[in-house]
Amino acid sequence: MTDTVAWSALSPLRAVAGPEDLLCLSRAELLALAKDIRARLVATVPRTGGHLGPNLGVVELTIALHRVFRSPVDRVVFDTGHQAYVHKMLTGRAGLLSDLRSAGGLSGYPSRAESRHDLVENSHASTALSYAHGLAEAARLRGGGRHVVAVVGDGALTGGMAWEALNNIAATAHPIVVVLNDNGRSYGATAGAVGRRLAELRVTRPERITSNVFTELGLAYLGPVDGHDVEAVEDALRAAKSTGRPVVVHCLTRKGRGHPPAEADPVDRMHAVSPAGRSGGIGWTSVFGEHLRLLAAERPDLVCLTAAMLHPTGLAAVAQAFPGRVFDVGIAEQHALTCAAGMAMGGLRPVVAVYSTFLCRAVDQVLLDVALHRLPVTLVLDRAGVTGEDGPSHHGTWDLAVLRLVPGMRVAAPRDGTRLRGLLAEAVSADGPTALRFPKGRVASDVPAVRTCGGVDVLHESRRRDVLLVAVGCLAADAVAAATALDHEGIGVTVADPRWVLPVDPAVVALAADHRRMVCVEDGVRSGGVGEAVAEAVRDAGLPTPVHVLGLPREFLPHGARTDILRAHGLDSAGIADAIRGALS
Amino acid sequence: MTDTVAWSALSPLRAVAGPEDLLCLSRAELLALAKDIRARLVATVPRTGGHLGPNLGVVELTIALHRVFRSPVDRVVFDTGHQAYVHKMLTGRAGLLSDLRSAGGLSGYPSRAESRHDLVENSHASTALSYAHGLAEAARLRGGGRHVVAVVGDGALTGGMAWEALNNIAATAHPIVVVLNDNGRSYGATAGAVGRRLAELRVTRPERITSNVFTELGLAYLGPVDGHDVEAVEDALRAAKSTGRPVVVHCLTRKGRGHPPAEADPVDRMHAVSPAGRSGGIGWTSVFGEHLRLLAAERPDLVCLTAAMLHPTGLAAVAQAFPGRVFDVGIAEQHALTCAAGMAMGGLRPVVAVYSTFLCRAVDQVLLDVALHRLPVTLVLDRAGVTGEDGPSHHGTWDLAVLRLVPGMRVAAPRDGTRLRGLLAEAVSADGPTALRFPKGRVASDVPAVRTCGGVDVLHESRRRDVLLVAVGCLAADAVAAATALDHEGIGVTVADPRWVLPVDPAVVALAADHRRMVCVEDGVRSGGVGEAVAEAVRDAGLPTPVHVLGLPREFLPHGARTDILRAHGLDSAGIADAIRGALS
Repeated sequence: MTDTVAWSALSPLRAVAGPEDLLCLSRAELLALAKDIRARLVATVPRTGGHLGPNLGVVELTIALHRVFRSPVDRVVFDTGHQAYVHKMLTGRAGLLSDLRSAGGLSGYPSRAESRHDLVENSHASTALSYAHGLAEAARLRGGGRHVVAVVGDGALTGGMAWEALNNIAATAHPIVVVLNDNGRSYGATAGAVGRRLAELRVTRPERITSNVFTELGLAYLGPVDGHDVEAVEDALRAAKSTGRPVVVHCLTRKGRGHPPAEADPVDRMHAVSPAGRSGGIGWTSVFGEHLRLLAAERPDLVCLTAAMLHPTGLAAVAQAFPGRVFDVGIAEQHALTCAAGMAMGGLRPVVAVYSTFLCRAVDQVLLDVALHRLPVTLVLDRAGVTGEDGPSHHGTWDLAVLRLVPGMRVAAPRDGTRLRGLLAEAVSADGPTALRFPKGRVASDVPAVRTCGGVDVLHESRRRDVLLVAVGCLAADAVAAATALDHEGIGVTVADPRWVLPVDPAVVALAADHRRMVCVEDGVRSGGVGEAVAEAVRDAGLPTPVHVLGLPREFLPHGARTDILRAHGLDSAGIADAIRGALS
Repeated sequence: MTDTVAWSALSPLRAVAGPEDLLCLSRAELLALAKDIRARLVATVPRTGGHLGPNLGVVELTIALHRVFRSPVDRVVFDTGHQAYVHKMLTGRAGLLSDLRSAGGLSGYPSRAESRHDLVENSHASTALSYAHGLAEAARLRGGGRHVVAVVGDGALTGGMAWEALNNIAATAHPIVVVLNDNGRSYGATAGAVGRRLAELRVTRPERITSNVFTELGLAYLGPVDGHDVEAVEDALRAAKSTGRPVVVHCLTRKGRGHPPAEADPVDRMHAVSPAGRSGGIGWTSVFGEHLRLLAAERPDLVCLTAAMLHPTGLAAVAQAFPGRVFDVGIAEQHALTCAAGMAMGGLRPVVAVYSTFLCRAVDQVLLDVALHRLPVTLVLDRAGVTGEDGPSHHGTWDLAVLRLVPGMRVAAPRDGTRLRGLLAEAVSADGPTALRFPKGRVASDVPAVRTCGGVDVLHESRRRDVLLVAVGCLAADAVAAATALDHEGIGVTVADPRWVLPVDPAVVALAADHRRMVCVEDGVRSGGVGEAVAEAVRDAGLPTPVHVLGLPREFLPHGARTDILRAHGLDSAGIADAIRGALS
């Protein structure tokens, strides 16, 4: 099925230029529209890549939202935003869906540049209620009678921010409608007591619900409502809207709804699909997960934590073998880190596997719960560096600069699968906090060392020692390619991979003394990262060697293909070679 | 009243070498012990400085805890830890209380170096339940039948981490006892719906409580119990302990209990008292609060947020004048930032006032909620740099390095009260995110500029231009003193205060071109901060000028007097002058 077939002139979606066009549709027309939207999603998203399951689950809910509320006067905030494709289609962007997540095309999340119907671009979970509280206070102080709507998944309620916001919202009298899009899952089943209690509510008749966690806070509660019945959702939303105060509308939805392969997918209901033909090869994630499983078999004290991403972080491999030693704590990075600190105090050896971008959620906990107590907790940061199509809030470009600030923290950046296995084993044997970071995608071919110097692998040497090139992690292969190209130009480059990139290995400083110049290359933000740490170490050693730092600018990077973004910032072999020529000229 | 009077040989506390000595005491002896502990606290803490009110409130509760549980086999974690003085007195440290919070003396928080009864040194709120979950999983996996106890204030429940942890704990069957030390306050009254609902429970007879937020999560609940009745607390704790599963024991306490001036203190029940004779002079906090009140009078769109620290951050001055425009969101820095982002989206101009150290709780929100959307939110970071007696988790030494990573963020560091007022006005007029940081204590005397260069104030010049000294914020006076001393040695130092320290003002680079060397001095961590940013800017401009960076090491700094800690790290006039001599030699 191609995109064009579903997007015919007869498509009901064609007639929807904006939310106002939904108002006059009959029940039959709404059903046809919902069907058309699903057909478009199923035809397009597997080709572009993107969040198929979540969007299939919110078709009717989003139609109802835009019939009851008047965006953009009323403010609609989508938590995480990966479920906003339907919203995009109903707000004038259906025709652009075929370029979803490609450079210059539609973002996979709401985008303020795309539409005045989009407010929040950040895709990290559990924030929508906080925005809603802020927007509602602004509406109160500035007047105008706006309603504020937050669309929040049940998984997002496991994040502490959501609780902080509910605590505040419940104490106001503002017209905030919390649409609880309860599909029982984030990627997998929603963790903890909240998930369990919502599951009980889901099968309780509305008239028999006397109290729940929302009403205990003093919030009004409506539901549960069949989230795939447009009329029922509309009725509930209208009732909520008319109260003029904060209300939770509990909508029951099915992730993947209407697409049998998604509904049947046991792992995550096709939460996210990769573009056709893009898979193949072994990913960094699975090398990690498989090796951690082997280490867990050797060490009964080894335990693992994930913040609602058992499969995406590779921990499912360990969980299958040792189910009692893997903990899904919900979308709760703060708790994951401090719970790990408690486990380490109790004599366990915790590994916390998160995406690099989500480390920013738990900086305080890494510093003051793990590092202050010098606890042996290992952070595994997947999707480090440039991530690609998920855009600015998924790039993992701050981890090195942040972890550099943490006293006693050692950070490893494996350059290939062999190094990932070796460094992981070293990390979980260290007696203090450690971190391991690697990118999204297929693991690179092994890059052998020609010799070692202290803990540093030397990957390339020439007769001349013009430049010492320090390469962080997966950029090693490009660094070697650049050095090889420069050999032909008579420029001698030594390529060093410190393996443990922070703090700076004294061997890096020793190597620096033998070279005229140094260049450091990393796929993190250039300011404050490994390159600057190397420059600091070289300066502190009293060496005059100039250090050139290559990395990413202090900017939010747009979505696009990972390799394209790296190339655009000079972080490929050609860019590295150019920078070295520039440094020498 | 002196320390010695209360600590006589007849003191019942003398007989308590450890918790085991509590077991054989009669009811009358327990009452005498409680009285003695209070007398000691009241005699000592106003002299040493420290958290008087919270400790007066937990005397009976802590006695009961140590009679029912067997620390350190059973694990007792104190949330924030500022209420752990009584615990210290009962675990062999009563004789050391007179050196509380002085360098080398007892820490004002639990300390693993002091005692095996102390587990968690971090004083940031809402973490204890996460540690408890981790410790309980460790006890399960390693065996041994330990009980785990978390002592948590009602204020700490407004923090999201506590919710994340409850969500996990409620789904386990582990023997975790949550002692809810409910005094209705953090500094001020506990914010939001949680505070309101707990206040209702407080006046409800136990038999009439059918449900609450804890039971809705599936947790067992016991209470409310009079937290000043040792026997009642003991009975409840024994009942909780015997269930062998997670239980909340709701204890009602009064902050400041038994000390009339504390019980009568309307602001914070003597939450923290300063050492006698140490007050006087106008603090940075009050200059900020007063000036913000003036700005708020001019700008009706200006709103303020605090995370449960209305008075300590100086916002009380604004709240008194404009109560509807100041929001206490609870101990919820994450929500504060994202709610502020929502307010800014809605057309308001939010100022978020927090202690610098607590910024680490909301790094993700600053980056991806405020900065990604380029929203005009102003962060005001009080207690930046070295804080002093509160120790490692209160020093605010990471803010500059963290904020340097945030795209579009501008950071100002006022050197005196005049600059604080001016920069605050500039900050709230900027069209993107801004931050202002200043230290604890009395505001420095004004340091006049001799001329300006772009946005940079030049504070001192000599005929010779040997060194350009860039001073961050309150270190300006020491920098000028160092430059004046060096004048007499024939070393010419230009002292520059960039006012806006991040990103680096081009005028700093222009000045650098006129000098042989540069020295940057800041009261933040040396790695990744302003000095490195200046070095990066100078390097990127192609200037060969060497940049020496003075700042704090990448270590957790102990408690001690602020000026002593700064001096020990060379961040006073003598240290700066020495560093300049060293740089030139």
